[in-house]
Amino acid sequence: YGKNTIKFLRLHREGKKHFVKEVEVCTHIRLTSAQEYLEENNSLVIPTDTIKNIVLVLAQKNGIPTLEQFAIDICKHFMTTFYQVAYVKAYVQEVPWQRLHENGVPHTHSFICVPDGIRFCEAELCRNGPLLVFAGIKDLKLMKTTQSGFEGFYKNEHTTLPERSDRVLCGELFCKWSYGECRNFDFDCIWYTNKIRECILEAFSGPPDSGEYSPSYQKTVNRIQMLILSNVSQVQVIEVILNNIYFEVIDMKNLGLTNDKEVLIPVETPYGSCTCTLGRKKFLEA
Amino acid sequence: YGKNTIKFLRLHREGKKHFVKEVEVCTHIRLTSAQEYLEENNSLVIPTDTIKNIVLVLAQKNGIPTLEQFAIDICKHFMTTFYQVAYVKAYVQEVPWQRLHENGVPHTHSFICVPDGIRFCEAELCRNGPLLVFAGIKDLKLMKTTQSGFEGFYKNEHTTLPERSDRVLCGELFCKWSYGECRNFDFDCIWYTNKIRECILEAFSGPPDSGEYSPSYQKTVNRIQMLILSNVSQVQVIEVILNNIYFEVIDMKNLGLTNDKEVLIPVETPYGSCTCTLGRKKFLEA
Amino acid sequence: YGKNTIKFLRLHREGKKHFVKEVEVCTHIRLTSAQEYLEENNSLVIPTDTIKNIVLVLAQKNGIPTLEQFAIDICKHFMTTFYQVAYVKAYVQEVPWQRLHENGVPHTHSFICVPDGIRFCEAELCRNGPLLVFAGIKDLKLMKTTQSGFEGFYKNEHTTLPERSDRVLCGELFCKWSYGECRNFDFDCIWYTNKIRECILEAFSGPPDSGEYSPSYQKTVNRIQMLILSNVSQVQVIEVILNNIYFEVIDMKNLGLTNDKEVLIPVETPYGSCTCTLGRKKFLEA
Amino acid sequence: YGKNTIKFLRLHREGKKHFVKEVEVCTHIRLTSAQEYLEENNSLVIPTDTIKNIVLVLAQKNGIPTLEQFAIDICKHFMTTFYQVAYVKAYVQEVPWQRLHENGVPHTHSFICVPDGIRFCEAELCRNGPLLVFAGIKDLKLMKTTQSGFEGFYKNEHTTLPERSDRVLCGELFCKWSYGECRNFDFDCIWYTNKIRECILEAFSGPPDSGEYSPSYQKTVNRIQMLILSNVSQVQVIEVILNNIYFEVIDMKNLGLTNDKEVLIPVETPYGSCTCTLGRKKFLEA
Repeated sequence: YGKNTIKFLRLHREGKKHFVKEVEVCTHIRLTSAQEYLEENNSLVIPTDTIKNIVLVLAQKNGIPTLEQFAIDICKHFMTTFYQVAYVKAYVQEVPWQRLHENGVPHTHSFICVPDGIRFCEAELCRNGPLLVFAGIKDLKLMKTTQSGFEGFYKNEHTTLPERSDRVLCGELFCKWSYGECRNFDFDCIWYTNKIRECILEAFSGPPDSGEYSPSYQKTVNRIQMLILSNVSQVQVIEVILNNIYFEVIDMKNLGLTNDKEVLIPVETPYGSCTCTLGRKKFLEA
Repeated sequence: YGKNTIKFLRLHREGKKHFVKEVEVCTHIRLTSAQEYLEENNSLVIPTDTIKNIVLVLAQKNGIPTLEQFAIDICKHFMTTFYQVAYVKAYVQEVPWQRLHENGVPHTHSFICVPDGIRFCEAELCRNGPLLVFAGIKDLKLMKTTQSGFEGFYKNEHTTLPERSDRVLCGELFCKWSYGECRNFDFDCIWYTNKIRECILEAFSGPPDSGEYSPSYQKTVNRIQMLILSNVSQVQVIEVILNNIYFEVIDMKNLGLTNDKEVLIPVETPYGSCTCTLGRKKFLEA
Repeated sequence: YGKNTIKFLRLHREGKKHFVKEVEVCTHIRLTSAQEYLEENNSLVIPTDTIKNIVLVLAQKNGIPTLEQFAIDICKHFMTTFYQVAYVKAYVQEVPWQRLHENGVPHTHSFICVPDGIRFCEAELCRNGPLLVFAGIKDLKLMKTTQSGFEGFYKNEHTTLPERSDRVLCGELFCKWSYGECRNFDFDCIWYTNKIRECILEAFSGPPDSGEYSPSYQKTVNRIQMLILSNVSQVQVIEVILNNIYFEVIDMKNLGLTNDKEVLIPVETPYGSCTCTLGRKKFLEA
Repeated sequence: YGKNTIKFLRLHREGKKHFVKEVEVCTHIRLTSAQEYLEENNSLVIPTDTIKNIVLVLAQKNGIPTLEQFAIDICKHFMTTFYQVAYVKAYVQEVPWQRLHENGVPHTHSFICVPDGIRFCEAELCRNGPLLVFAGIKDLKLMKTTQSGFEGFYKNEHTTLPERSDRVLCGELFCKWSYGECRNFDFDCIWYTNKIRECILEAFSGPPDSGEYSPSYQKTVNRIQMLILSNVSQVQVIEVILNNIYFEVIDMKNLGLTNDKEVLIPVETPYGSCTCTLGRKKFLEA
């Protein structure tokens, strides 16, 4: 059990310059005993209200140096403080505030919300177990208007999809990777120096002038995974989900027009979904 | 990979009387090979468009006798038809249309949408594995305005929650149970004859005149599970998630008023969540 | 300016029997002066926090006898208490809690949320102006699977819709009516005795055995309005919006099947919308 | 009546370089007669399916040079083509795709969705009336962490809000302005050259190093309006709605901590809302 969607803003000031982290935190714990379920005995139950208080206290005391470090702080606090906790998981997601700029000059205290992909992380810890840390990005919507096709697929009497060598590829990406057992990583450094986000964008879109042909959603997912694994040594396993939005080139012949892929209708439901988990030296597909 | 949110209405007519099932289906498959990820070879890939077609064809041919049977039909079709499929899962969720009545007389062809809990089911099948069937209800919002408290819980310096012996208990329920390896059940019979829904409502609320005291969300979850397991022999394991909405009795002293639990504010975030999975002869808590 | 989405639960007890009204209130006011906009002078500004407090205080003091009376109470309080208020509007919407029943016996204190149409009302008052009261129902989803068609419409070179004499009619209804200048109505009596909801359902669906043919969404909207105006004398003007969801009978010939209106796909976007406002002795169409 | 949420992508190619406009269009018309409501006579009714076709045909033929021009094209087409149309309104909203860049180089055909404010416009036309054009931006979330307060407001027994000279100001902005009767404007030029968006950001946040003190939400709204009216001569009237999210500095004394505005909780409901409409040489407040 636990507390979901603990939302708060952590404001940090350095002179006139302000820094903000607005986050949503979910913290779940499992106790070593189940007597509250079976025997109406609440004596070991940590109220979810207390869980919320602890998250806020840790935010006030430690700040949020990185999302990952904050999730780790939460896990360690519960495991250290409460002997009755068998397992703890903390999920932290960031509201994507960006500092405003006026004519290139950064503003000291004004921000705009730019939700072009949401950064999140997760830490989990079993009593006597290793600390596991995951990070990821979700709700990242990308589109390429050519250099995508889907041909040579399996056909039977229920196949009506035509083969296409030039289609619009559009989808929402969810990427989540594991750092394995956690050592003292500089998580923001991994994010920003290794440019995980840029890896994703590059693997999706290819070189700026010519792009790179995608023969299937599956292959695009695989390219994203391969590029991150090869560029970011700390990542052990990476899961990618691509929910694709199909753009249908509508036939306008009965309206007296030729539609040369100029007007396309997004088909939001049903949507295809493609999930793949790729690790170092092993391959898992789900 | 697969196709999500395949929505359709299956209309069945018996003379003037019409019967409707509007459903959302998600169907996911895993292939035995991953060559489309690794080698750009699509020759075994069943397009998600074909998956959609198959779901619609099965609906047209077999109808939807029960949600569960339809999910089973889908799984069996994929495993039988495609040698390259290693695993298939079908999720089916129903739009809660109810027949209209005028002065007690049922209407032959008019319906109203009454979303007081959404019925769903899931079937999954591995090649050479057993057929697993799950069913459940979600988005069921319940409230009791007394006969609920929370006392005797664990306290430390981060505890600010007062003990209460009379509070509002309100939450959204998710229940999902497994029928184990599937034999030829009459699924609608289990639903309607064994009154699973009524079990949930009764375990939540207690007798109509006096209710039954709930010492914690955990105990309420446990009661729901125990009642279903004891009343419905086909259910093997049951998972319940209770996302509770806390109703705060606001202090109106500074407004010159006494508030004797008459005006309460719903606190939607953060919310507590309590999950428990209970099986026959075994107990798992998560 | 004002405060939106003031959510609270008003609990009323008669012995062991509890009654609940959970509502969302929006209250907006306009001041006689605009000096806070123009001159940075806040001296007449009533903080939205105070607006919220007043709504809660009125709920505690007066209860919520009917939604309409509560909206009227709010308007009158602001106009009477604050000389600087030129205009006030209160919108009240109800969370659709229904008392649970076990084997036909009503439960004293347990409720289930049944969102099959949301009841709302609005009151507004200008200084020296009449009190205007509106009420309505929204988010009411209805479907009829026959007795609906659309023929004889205007055609030109951009028309591709075929004529149909038997189609599924499905839509979400919004109805809002005005009681004119408000006298001392018994609002719940109007609702429940005159059965406004039943009028809507009956006008939509027709007699239970045979239904009534709808030649267009427009005509169905008109029937709803006519039936309410003729059955409920207090209603002066009624606006109805019908957002229709088109159900497409998919062609399954290329899948080797005949689809005799058995499998239909809901097309949620784009959707048609039809609005009409009808009053006594006058007719306005928008 | 009309058709809402007609979604499509208009793809324009110049050699290898692709340009995308994905829009949602709502088109509503009113006929000169109401015989379809009153007499079941559909002979003048233009099906909403035809409305959709016309929107797509115009997009294919003319492209979408600007949102405003496209809305104007729709209005003119309906008024010119159909003698039975008395009024037409077209609303166009853009999906915020931005071209991807790799190391500063723009990609020829890859795009990312960046929803930091949604651009929309509206055109309306009555038979024999002037063409009216509106444009705007919505869903723009901004925050400033200082240089905001609220003092000197009206107080009575229901006031509990303390005065504050340093608070977080956070809100979602909706701005909509009228170009008056429409001449041949270069709408994109007005947007990009006059930097309406930059006006809003600047008026909200003040100079980058010091900011500008906001004594109330109302004054901030007024500053946005004044700056746009003074910088963009084509704008005649501008309406701004600011829905503010209150950030509460939580008291952590009972948790043994001092909270110097470091940890703040967003209060999403209820929320204050402030609307003001400002025109040239006249002032309207709502």
